[in-house]
Amino acid sequence: MAIRIFITGGTFDKEYNEINGQLFFKETHLPEMITRSRVTPEVEVTTLMMIDSLDMKSGDRELIVNQCNNAKEDKIIITHGTDTMAVTASVLAGKVEGKTIILTGAMIPYKFGSSDGFFNLGCALAFVQTLPAGVYVSMNGRYFTWDNVRKNRETGIFEEIFQATPHTSHGS
Amino acid sequence: MAIRIFITGGTFDKEYNEINGQLFFKETHLPEMITRSRVTPEVEVTTLMMIDSLDMKSGDRELIVNQCNNAKEDKIIITHGTDTMAVTASVLAGKVEGKTIILTGAMIPYKFGSSDGFFNLGCALAFVQTLPAGVYVSMNGRYFTWDNVRKNRETGIFEEIFQATPHTSHGS
Amino acid sequence: MAIRIFITGGTFDKEYNEINGQLFFKETHLPEMITRSRVTPEVEVTTLMMIDSLDMKSGDRELIVNQCNNAKEDKIIITHGTDTMAVTASVLAGKVEGKTIILTGAMIPYKFGSSDGFFNLGCALAFVQTLPAGVYVSMNGRYFTWDNVRKNRETGIFEEIFQATPHTSHGS
Amino acid sequence: MAIRIFITGGTFDKEYNEINGQLFFKETHLPEMITRSRVTPEVEVTTLMMIDSLDMKSGDRELIVNQCNNAKEDKIIITHGTDTMAVTASVLAGKVEGKTIILTGAMIPYKFGSSDGFFNLGCALAFVQTLPAGVYVSMNGRYFTWDNVRKNRETGIFEEIFQATPHTSHGS
Repeated sequence: MAIRIFITGGTFDKEYNEINGQLFFKETHLPEMITRSRVTPEVEVTTLMMIDSLDMKSGDRELIVNQCNNAKEDKIIITHGTDTMAVTASVLAGKVEGKTIILTGAMIPYKFGSSDGFFNLGCALAFVQTLPAGVYVSMNGRYFTWDNVRKNRETGIFEEIFQATPHTSHGS
Repeated sequence: MAIRIFITGGTFDKEYNEINGQLFFKETHLPEMITRSRVTPEVEVTTLMMIDSLDMKSGDRELIVNQCNNAKEDKIIITHGTDTMAVTASVLAGKVEGKTIILTGAMIPYKFGSSDGFFNLGCALAFVQTLPAGVYVSMNGRYFTWDNVRKNRETGIFEEIFQATPHTSHGS
Repeated sequence: MAIRIFITGGTFDKEYNEINGQLFFKETHLPEMITRSRVTPEVEVTTLMMIDSLDMKSGDRELIVNQCNNAKEDKIIITHGTDTMAVTASVLAGKVEGKTIILTGAMIPYKFGSSDGFFNLGCALAFVQTLPAGVYVSMNGRYFTWDNVRKNRETGIFEEIFQATPHTSHGS
Repeated sequence: MAIRIFITGGTFDKEYNEINGQLFFKETHLPEMITRSRVTPEVEVTTLMMIDSLDMKSGDRELIVNQCNNAKEDKIIITHGTDTMAVTASVLAGKVEGKTIILTGAMIPYKFGSSDGFFNLGCALAFVQTLPAGVYVSMNGRYFTWDNVRKNRETGIFEEIFQATPHTSHGS
């Protein structure tokens, strides 16, 4: 079955507006990236919105939830701004079941030479095919479960909130 | 534990020689790609050789086998030319056990604007963290087990040799 | 004799700050561009400031004037934000004599894939070698004398203020 | 009046063939480069041939001569492989008069990230607007008259055959 990609905007898809010198949203680069990646799994791309994740409101998240529930696919990638990616993941976790959902994004816009976006899309596409049903964030070459991830605003790096305890003490 | 990346060359790392107009190998671009990807899993890169996979001989493959067996890591990515990637995968499958090994490469050199290499590295890094021990080829956004993969030379696309039988015989 | 390049900032040299999502100045890309261009004329690069041209004050322009007068070279390129490039050109025109000075910039930062900056540098380098002493703006593949140029803010295109009258009628 | 650009091929326009791993010619990138450069002078692009300049024969050069003579424009840029650029320049010099003709090319294909091609186009466009009638080669940020230029095959750099004598001795 096809993999569904929902676009919500974020740094990933920002363009440079040469008239006013601001970054803005025009169209998603996902179709161009899909072509360039030469993927053979069938991929369906739908743009839900094109916004900064700091501007995402609860109504926007409800829309994403509904789209995930209504999608016929059970493997879903969501491109999303990094700042509130973990928030949307936690909203989805309570309301969508039986699907593997990967949220991903980029620290640098795809159109910048140094962007991590194309790499991140590769990670997300691989994780969505191999992880069991659940909601995950994929950034920095890793995946995180929705309930144990945050973006470190100072470093720009995604990290776990709680470190796994390597040796569970027993008997105490 | 760290992820090991072994470099063997292939299209991935080809450069343009401006003196003679030929493509050639200089140095691997993997360290630059790792930096750009902002990965947090620890990654160790070792260049084993820098050759076209059509020039790879059995001695070269023995070297790769030995390096995989001697590596302390049990998650290994091998960058490799696409033409004989499946051959090397089958050699590794018989001689390395208990490790997840992903072979990947690129159809277009990383230094070309349209390269698939950075995306493929993302896929490989995700698959090596999620697939069970075994030898796999990752290209075109998919993974293939070593015993059921070939490169279609006419299309440049990796595909399964045997299609999975969708309807298992009934009545037996 | 060498060609002098003075850096003042502008869109040309803007980078993307991945922590706060803003465009900012880090270091000039000119040395990298010079290497990539494979130019053989000797080129000396000096960074005078790294600012938006809308933030440029009269003291900044005095500094540029002084640097142009003090430079031993008589061929000078100045990289500059596009918004007030014509203003700086007119200040220079009254205060620097006997030198060919070309102001240039970019509509899109060099680090964006679609930047015009590298092309514009080529134009500026060619114009500075062929035009007589004077102060010029070079953008959009053309050169303009300092007293007949403006940036059209709506289109982002540089244009003449006064059209040359092609056929001056006399005697009729 | 418009500037005419004649395409003849060369490194400039080479693409990577992902099926056989060879460099080849598909279509010229000039229209894309013209758009990206945001030039306002009117530019007309015509593809005459798409070949390596080492494969260029006298018939091909006759075709170029005829096209230059028949063009209504008197400012002409010719994109050309670097290896025999000087040969074509010398053929043109004897057979086209009253026009400014600039031959240029690239050491690295435009589609490679490190290409000098876009810069070289900027130089050529500026030189064609400022140099008097004659045939010139523009590479490495300079221009050369047709009768005093060669490509140094070892360094890949264009240079003068005869150095200008800086102090002409008099009286001896």
